[in-house]
Amino acid sequence: MPYSAAVGEIRKRQPTGAAVLQADVTEAITEAVLDELADTGYGKLSMEAVARRAGVGKSALYRRWPSKQEMVMAVVADFSIDRAAAPDTGSLRGDLAGLVHAFTEWLTHPRISRILPDLAAEGVRNAELAEAVRAAIGGPRRTIGAAVLQRAIARGELPADTDLELALDLIAAPVYWRLSVRGAPVEPGYLDAVADAVLRALTGRMAP
Amino acid sequence: MPYSAAVGEIRKRQPTGAAVLQADVTEAITEAVLDELADTGYGKLSMEAVARRAGVGKSALYRRWPSKQEMVMAVVADFSIDRAAAPDTGSLRGDLAGLVHAFTEWLTHPRISRILPDLAAEGVRNAELAEAVRAAIGGPRRTIGAAVLQRAIARGELPADTDLELALDLIAAPVYWRLSVRGAPVEPGYLDAVADAVLRALTGRMAP
Repeated sequence: MPYSAAVGEIRKRQPTGAAVLQADVTEAITEAVLDELADTGYGKLSMEAVARRAGVGKSALYRRWPSKQEMVMAVVADFSIDRAAAPDTGSLRGDLAGLVHAFTEWLTHPRISRILPDLAAEGVRNAELAEAVRAAIGGPRRTIGAAVLQRAIARGELPADTDLELALDLIAAPVYWRLSVRGAPVEPGYLDAVADAVLRALTGRMAP
Repeated sequence: MPYSAAVGEIRKRQPTGAAVLQADVTEAITEAVLDELADTGYGKLSMEAVARRAGVGKSALYRRWPSKQEMVMAVVADFSIDRAAAPDTGSLRGDLAGLVHAFTEWLTHPRISRILPDLAAEGVRNAELAEAVRAAIGGPRRTIGAAVLQRAIARGELPADTDLELALDLIAAPVYWRLSVRGAPVEPGYLDAVADAVLRALTGRMAP
């Protein structure tokens, strides 16, 4: 988790300049950023509103991040990459179920369920933001997921030439589509049905 | 296509009152609604801006639809349901490829590629809008897709107890996830790879 580690580093670091980044202030700002994003969305989010919500001055924000975009990316990445699962159950079926369930847990988090569709809609109009989301959030999360599938290749459960990009799309996409685009419920059993479908899609085999 | 038919009905109908709904005015308003939605999004869209863009008075809008939400739903549904594919190639593999390609064509339309993620993000904050999108757009499109899969059941290519809801999610979700959330490109071959994966997921069989 290189990004998360980097953010942790920022929190712990004692700057050489006059300002010391206090961990409790960073924590208050982080919470304020996530709440503002969930409530008002990226487009309308202002540094003023975040500072007010966190009970700090705007300079406390700019000491940590040079811009709104970098602040949002760092905070959402830290929140999201910590929640990326790397299940290691010993079987592909078990790991696929673990990935689908953990993804759904992230996606249904009261904050992320509002933040992610909003960032996706903003990204359509703002290519720089879309690229930043890919680099800071999607990329690291997919790297973690890919490592799970690579272990299945190493175990001989998946062909060496498995299309990992497609596999990761199949794991994440149905739940996002259902919950965040269709606004349809996830019935009991749906997540395991997705895991079974991905298993068949990748191997042609049925679940045991 | 009940919704589309209903919209067609509105266009053709000669009201009993004084006002006659002129087809060319309806057409101008329809174009203006789609362009305003793509440019500014649902939240900021105003009846004033649509009327200005269409070169008509606001009353021309209210003669056709009682509210912004009903106007947007009718226009986007008409645009989208007309583009729902009902491929009938005689084989499940051919029909799956047809569904995935047609869905992608709709999704990458310059208007829909902006409108759909925006409506999804709005829907998270506005349950009534999300329900209207489901009823007016998602539902009718899925009915058309389900009929394609039901033909495969009738031909014996799919089990009678196939989970059609999951199947339709698998057809649409990966492309939406890739294009509209991840902002990643659809490489040549990706759509056919999705169709092959869905075929395996539904049948356990490889593509011929």
